[in-house]
Amino acid sequence: MISRDPVELVAQAASGSRTALARLLTFVESGGPPQLETAALAYRTPSPYVVGITGPPGAGKSTLTDQLITTVLDKGSFNGLDAFHEVSVLCIDPSSPFTGGAILGDRIRMQGHATNEHVFIRSMATRGHLGGLSLAVPDAVRVLGAAKFRLALIETVGVGQMEVEIASTADTTIVVVNPGWGDAMQANKAGLLEVADIFVINKADRPGVRETRRDLEQMLDLGGEHAWRPVILDAVATTATGIDELWEAIVAHRKFIEVGRLDEQRRARVRVELDKVLTAMVRSRIGALAHGEAYEEQVNALLADETDPYHAAALLLGDE
Amino acid sequence: MISRDPVELVAQAASGSRTALARLLTFVESGGPPQLETAALAYRTPSPYVVGITGPPGAGKSTLTDQLITTVLDKGSFNGLDAFHEVSVLCIDPSSPFTGGAILGDRIRMQGHATNEHVFIRSMATRGHLGGLSLAVPDAVRVLGAAKFRLALIETVGVGQMEVEIASTADTTIVVVNPGWGDAMQANKAGLLEVADIFVINKADRPGVRETRRDLEQMLDLGGEHAWRPVILDAVATTATGIDELWEAIVAHRKFIEVGRLDEQRRARVRVELDKVLTAMVRSRIGALAHGEAYEEQVNALLADETDPYHAAALLLGDE
Repeated sequence: MISRDPVELVAQAASGSRTALARLLTFVESGGPPQLETAALAYRTPSPYVVGITGPPGAGKSTLTDQLITTVLDKGSFNGLDAFHEVSVLCIDPSSPFTGGAILGDRIRMQGHATNEHVFIRSMATRGHLGGLSLAVPDAVRVLGAAKFRLALIETVGVGQMEVEIASTADTTIVVVNPGWGDAMQANKAGLLEVADIFVINKADRPGVRETRRDLEQMLDLGGEHAWRPVILDAVATTATGIDELWEAIVAHRKFIEVGRLDEQRRARVRVELDKVLTAMVRSRIGALAHGEAYEEQVNALLADETDPYHAAALLLGDE
Repeated sequence: MISRDPVELVAQAASGSRTALARLLTFVESGGPPQLETAALAYRTPSPYVVGITGPPGAGKSTLTDQLITTVLDKGSFNGLDAFHEVSVLCIDPSSPFTGGAILGDRIRMQGHATNEHVFIRSMATRGHLGGLSLAVPDAVRVLGAAKFRLALIETVGVGQMEVEIASTADTTIVVVNPGWGDAMQANKAGLLEVADIFVINKADRPGVRETRRDLEQMLDLGGEHAWRPVILDAVATTATGIDELWEAIVAHRKFIEVGRLDEQRRARVRVELDKVLTAMVRSRIGALAHGEAYEEQVNALLADETDPYHAAALLLGDE
């Protein structure tokens, strides 16, 4: 029988037990005491290098990720220094009450690698975690690190702020678009532009590649100076076209950030994660407070237009 | 010269000064002490009835809002009880570093009403407000109330969680879609379904209306029992077709929620607003904390893989 003790499970996961790893990830998703214990262990091991893959629904992210796995296992070294014999993949489906989100995910995707022992694929949905997916994902990445994975691919649907936020926990972020991307993504272009290190115009055998590339170049020009100007690549994931070039671009970006920036980037991310946990903890206390009498008094005063939320909150926090 | 004192400005806005109202809204957007003073005054006046209008970019929300203004001014009574001689409109563009968001908004939209003294139109972007747009918008609504508006239309682009959240501050929420809405909005359908009281299939002179209606009906069926089942209307905003029916549906929905639900709905919203302010205040303190030595020590420990964000946060909050 498999253990329920995080300490044992981390040791087993580090020795290659996928069952132990899966259970640890469930702890992370579900929240509660085992999540805290798991995090306490996982954050004390080195983080994998994280490649985020995001973009609108239907852009072909799963197929691209699938092909990337093959390429990484084939020739996956970063400048000849680190060879990747194993790849971990997190598929993030922000859960939806109507579609059930991630449940189906790992079953239908990336079937070709499902039985490969060097590949670990897991779908994640938000469940009981204190900070939701935006904290569960960094935790899961660290759990993959504790299981000795040195590379993690994170695939998210890049439509909302939260998905962009998840993508931004990556060391290298790939934004997948299609020829003719435009109106549908208009509102979120800025968010995707901010996180992109590499653009892939997937389905590049369709018309409109040149226009899409020009569109992206123009937006990058408008975005001002960047130390790293995002690369724009063409690909046809279904025929594995452009995947080697994608991996080379990832390697080049890693090389770039390693010159001083990886530390800086990780420091910034550690701050963001710490602030998110602080906020989530405080919010959970506010939730507890919200069952108190003083809180109800303020709610009633607000309903009677006798106070405003700022004075009410200050009073509840003991400032007045 | 116009005052900078919120007390004076609220009095002037209540007497019809649009300049005073505009300045108060700027206070709300910008944060800082005048925002708190303005809120303190505005929340002590009754809230307007809020109609939210949301939907994907290009759905025709602005044209629909424009037509709705005309209809409201023409025949805007709620069951003959309240006649609306004045309409206020907030256009929310979640700001984007690339497009500048709201800046252009009020200039290009709803030109027909721009010189009508019974109509007040304002675009909002997030600036310095403690809680961003998700708090600035409720504040702005209350400022409109302080300026004696009894009806506020809020137009937002419904693509992300935040926009849905803003829409949910409305008493009646209209979700505008087009024939053939589908793949592009797939990921956010659930969010829009949750907030919609009325669906408008705008541009209903195009093919695909029946399929879109069937699609929406099916999703509503899947969503389970609701006390109010969202109405689905056709419209062609450019020719003012279906706008009277839309206003009638709004009136019907208001009548429905007035039977006990308006209070309940407002109580729930007051709680959400209070919690948001509490969280924002605490987060702002965490921001202050983030300049301290103890915080830096924890960041360094995290970078050295010597702790995890949960223990670090607990320690900073004085729990350990």
